[in-house]
Amino acid sequence: MAQIKNVGVYTSGGDAPGMNAAIRAVVRTALYYNLEVTGIRRGYEGMINGDFLTMDRKSVGNIIQRGGTILKTARSEHFKTAEGRKLAYENLKKRGIDALVAIGGDGTFTGAKVFGKEYNFPIVGLPGTIDNDLLGTDYTIGYDTAINTVIDAVDKIRDTAESHDRLFIVEVMGRDSGLIALRTGIAAGAEAILIPETKTDLNALYHKLEQGRKDKSSKIVIVAEGEEAGGAFEIGKLIKDRFPNYDTRVSVLGHIQRGGRPSCQDRVLASRVGVAAVEALLKGHHNEMIGVINGEISYTPFESAIKHNTEINPALLKIVDILSL
Amino acid sequence: MAQIKNVGVYTSGGDAPGMNAAIRAVVRTALYYNLEVTGIRRGYEGMINGDFLTMDRKSVGNIIQRGGTILKTARSEHFKTAEGRKLAYENLKKRGIDALVAIGGDGTFTGAKVFGKEYNFPIVGLPGTIDNDLLGTDYTIGYDTAINTVIDAVDKIRDTAESHDRLFIVEVMGRDSGLIALRTGIAAGAEAILIPETKTDLNALYHKLEQGRKDKSSKIVIVAEGEEAGGAFEIGKLIKDRFPNYDTRVSVLGHIQRGGRPSCQDRVLASRVGVAAVEALLKGHHNEMIGVINGEISYTPFESAIKHNTEINPALLKIVDILSL
Amino acid sequence: MAQIKNVGVYTSGGDAPGMNAAIRAVVRTALYYNLEVTGIRRGYEGMINGDFLTMDRKSVGNIIQRGGTILKTARSEHFKTAEGRKLAYENLKKRGIDALVAIGGDGTFTGAKVFGKEYNFPIVGLPGTIDNDLLGTDYTIGYDTAINTVIDAVDKIRDTAESHDRLFIVEVMGRDSGLIALRTGIAAGAEAILIPETKTDLNALYHKLEQGRKDKSSKIVIVAEGEEAGGAFEIGKLIKDRFPNYDTRVSVLGHIQRGGRPSCQDRVLASRVGVAAVEALLKGHHNEMIGVINGEISYTPFESAIKHNTEINPALLKIVDILSL
Amino acid sequence: MAQIKNVGVYTSGGDAPGMNAAIRAVVRTALYYNLEVTGIRRGYEGMINGDFLTMDRKSVGNIIQRGGTILKTARSEHFKTAEGRKLAYENLKKRGIDALVAIGGDGTFTGAKVFGKEYNFPIVGLPGTIDNDLLGTDYTIGYDTAINTVIDAVDKIRDTAESHDRLFIVEVMGRDSGLIALRTGIAAGAEAILIPETKTDLNALYHKLEQGRKDKSSKIVIVAEGEEAGGAFEIGKLIKDRFPNYDTRVSVLGHIQRGGRPSCQDRVLASRVGVAAVEALLKGHHNEMIGVINGEISYTPFESAIKHNTEINPALLKIVDILSL
Repeated sequence: MAQIKNVGVYTSGGDAPGMNAAIRAVVRTALYYNLEVTGIRRGYEGMINGDFLTMDRKSVGNIIQRGGTILKTARSEHFKTAEGRKLAYENLKKRGIDALVAIGGDGTFTGAKVFGKEYNFPIVGLPGTIDNDLLGTDYTIGYDTAINTVIDAVDKIRDTAESHDRLFIVEVMGRDSGLIALRTGIAAGAEAILIPETKTDLNALYHKLEQGRKDKSSKIVIVAEGEEAGGAFEIGKLIKDRFPNYDTRVSVLGHIQRGGRPSCQDRVLASRVGVAAVEALLKGHHNEMIGVINGEISYTPFESAIKHNTEINPALLKIVDILSL
Repeated sequence: MAQIKNVGVYTSGGDAPGMNAAIRAVVRTALYYNLEVTGIRRGYEGMINGDFLTMDRKSVGNIIQRGGTILKTARSEHFKTAEGRKLAYENLKKRGIDALVAIGGDGTFTGAKVFGKEYNFPIVGLPGTIDNDLLGTDYTIGYDTAINTVIDAVDKIRDTAESHDRLFIVEVMGRDSGLIALRTGIAAGAEAILIPETKTDLNALYHKLEQGRKDKSSKIVIVAEGEEAGGAFEIGKLIKDRFPNYDTRVSVLGHIQRGGRPSCQDRVLASRVGVAAVEALLKGHHNEMIGVINGEISYTPFESAIKHNTEINPALLKIVDILSL
Repeated sequence: MAQIKNVGVYTSGGDAPGMNAAIRAVVRTALYYNLEVTGIRRGYEGMINGDFLTMDRKSVGNIIQRGGTILKTARSEHFKTAEGRKLAYENLKKRGIDALVAIGGDGTFTGAKVFGKEYNFPIVGLPGTIDNDLLGTDYTIGYDTAINTVIDAVDKIRDTAESHDRLFIVEVMGRDSGLIALRTGIAAGAEAILIPETKTDLNALYHKLEQGRKDKSSKIVIVAEGEEAGGAFEIGKLIKDRFPNYDTRVSVLGHIQRGGRPSCQDRVLASRVGVAAVEALLKGHHNEMIGVINGEISYTPFESAIKHNTEINPALLKIVDILSL
Repeated sequence: MAQIKNVGVYTSGGDAPGMNAAIRAVVRTALYYNLEVTGIRRGYEGMINGDFLTMDRKSVGNIIQRGGTILKTARSEHFKTAEGRKLAYENLKKRGIDALVAIGGDGTFTGAKVFGKEYNFPIVGLPGTIDNDLLGTDYTIGYDTAINTVIDAVDKIRDTAESHDRLFIVEVMGRDSGLIALRTGIAAGAEAILIPETKTDLNALYHKLEQGRKDKSSKIVIVAEGEEAGGAFEIGKLIKDRFPNYDTRVSVLGHIQRGGRPSCQDRVLASRVGVAAVEALLKGHHNEMIGVINGEISYTPFESAIKHNTEINPALLKIVDILSL
């Protein structure tokens, strides 16, 4: 293996708070080990277009606390073609970039896996997605911030729900994953949580809402985007039909969940895996995602990481039932 | 005029952050002047049902910082009937309540105006609504908190908009009023603001979005609910048709705008008018809303206050045009 | 009067949230009117050192929501000398800057006043200070954010005070001004407020703390830095001596009050006066601070603006007494 | 072992955000299993004074999002005596309380350990302290909120530090533990972290501050309260002596670190261990703290839990060095 001299770093797919902290960590660690660092803008699109910038310590000054990604992000259809990847490879070579740190989720790592094999290019990945749905890490960068954003919003909704004795159906992000819904449902004191991983039992939901009605003035139901009955609006319609005398409202939290200053834990996680990513490249790792499991750095092959984590802790589901009674 | 001995206080209509600070101020001021105070739950509904509670200093301890209203709020169809108001009057009399402080918006004051005349009952009102659409006060209780909640959300949306070079259409509250949209549009650095008070010029909007596109990667358009072209989803559809290559998203902020810890200014305003309301009753005022104009307490007859403030400062509209260039 | 071609903009003295929004407004308005704009770094120090940068629309992109000042700020002893000001003048001339917008407080405007007269140089000022102690504007840029930061902190302190039945002495900023203390004291539901503008009556304070003790478990006293008895630590010591069985704690909020994302109102104010400043220069105004009084733009000669606003609204002081009972 | 019928719950020692979420979980879980629940106010003091209240589902409604503890907390010297504990035991017996859930830190568990043995009384504990210094759980309730409060404050301080090119010494809580300092130091992008667990190497600190000075305008040093050189003021004095031309400021964050709405993770943790505590009592556990290790509920004898966790992950310390360069 040739010695690494110039590390390229990029963010790709949906943005997540803490990506800037990860970029900062990659850049400063590379410099610490006397490597050059090149920022690649807009992920794979930037590779294909040669949208590169040399990064120094100052490029990443005062960004650890900022949401979004200073390198911007995109999804690239072009990179899914062999021709797109060839262009990318040639640009990287021309620029002297000889290793990559990819920050993103399953789409990002799928691209990295293919490209890494095709061109025998050293790539490691950092888990950057609010969905927390990657295998190989306890948490992904952005998840902790997103769940705090959700409960901040639901706390506000609860103020008005309590004042009006209303039932709110609140939709949170998670097309394939109920992990945001699960923790925020517990933390918001929700009556019920509807997630894609479990079959939505409408009768159980109706029963619960009826039963609780007697002595609880307001109610919150948290619905993950990808829930099988069709999301918050659909559930809201069903509940309004069933309980026409309830004052039922729907709120879709939407894109606020992607932004904001990263939480302390997201910054620490991003910093840890950012440092470890560069050190892993130097030790010869490639095609692996760097995560943290049980407090220790972990290395997971891309092909394993991108398998969706569909395991929902049944103990957490039971907590919702016990505490919302 | 008979001497006042027992002041009833209630919140009615849409809730607004700072209502609790207002309740606290009314209760403590009444006690300061050796009056009794009775809380009426759920506004006019509670009057009709006799849902009363005696309040002391402790009833309002540690609530100044809480969103919502501890007295709960509701809209009442029953109170619009003479029969409903008769029931309310009898309940108030039975309880010994001989003056009222109504906290709410135009619906609240319309009810107060009719009831006050019908039964010659001393009532003053406090402007409690996030919409800031009442004449007779520079700001309503809740408006300042709501606009801060909006920009907090739009700042988050901007993080992701910047990262993806997206155009966001963000809908804020204001069925009849563009005042939330106007200030938050300026404060969020929006490209354009669409409000009910002005005719929406779609061509001007398209022109602006096109023109700015060249060197500005992300864009925010703030739309008030009541905007004439049909709100954010409708505008979003039109823009997607016109600019199919823009990455356009719609976000409806919804009920988070009603909740949350009240801002400093909302607490100060609520405290000032709460104190002034009780003092006004003692001085013989009735059928008036207590507001603050140019830093001084003001008294406005209910029938004037409920006329919607439709005046939009043209200087503020021009600022949007200059600064979004 | 020669036509203005190049406006210099700088921030000086203590920083305040919203200064960036003001810089953005000045830059974009100048460009709107086809002027050039030059940023001057670190206030008068930068003038003396020729620390200039040409600003375009992008220089001020995505800064409206950021605390601090991208132009940095400083206090300059050198500019107080004729020789320093001569250097500054020569640098400005060399660079082609023919008008200035100064953002800051009384120190900033004192310098501007002297320099403007000495070299007949067109300067207008924007009120940028968290202290709100300038005549000629209802609010200064940064004040609204600072008071929200204070009540956010005091709400947290109240949580622990309530849990432990403690008395907290909280010191807020305001060396010569009690305006931060006054509004935050009302909004935090404080028992007492000690400010530089009024003589601190310790016996009245003791009496109040004793009286309230019986049925109120926790207490907050807000002390302005410049309070005559010596600030929070001194007051804390006196109270501990007098009431050895109270669990009394002191908290000095310090520099957090200067930072943070500006509030909606601070961004709107900064935007309005920023636009108005450039328009004022074009209309021939100089030696004036641009503020907002009763909702309208106002122009106040520097020599009047820098006279400290020592007027404390007695109605607000009385509110503290009534509501803390 | 006799069957449990009435669970007493109390908070003791320093309060921590999330204690209310823990109380709610204990109360609702006990009711779910058809037990009675008694709240004990002010910890051991309340046991000695018989300050009890029967709790139902509504007693813990709408508190999951609140800082502090609705049961209040205290430190008790009286409970350290055999006579105090006897009084407590008699009160518990009289009231019919036959098992206890103690929420607090090492002092709380030390008391619980002694009392549990002395009277063979079933007690389990929940880790409620912002310090995260207990063995037997990855995180304590309140730690996650506290570190987010710290970085929120340091982000604000950084705004003003950047604007003025200042060096800030920021003191965070942690009399015996550097765990708050360590994570917040990483997350705030601090130059250096001084903690009680490691010897403070002043020369290394000076060297670092000097070296970085050249191209970094502002600097943050995070100091834990219990740091051996004497805390932030002492360190600040040393640095001012050494670098008289640096603009050095000290900020002690203080009690704001104990308050505020609990973070999502703190609420989830509190809910999980609250449920598990009641279930543990029913299964016959006692003298154990209930924590979460590697995502699973864990049971640790009080005598092990109260041994301070003094282990500082060296990988995290190294990250500070790499990333602050």
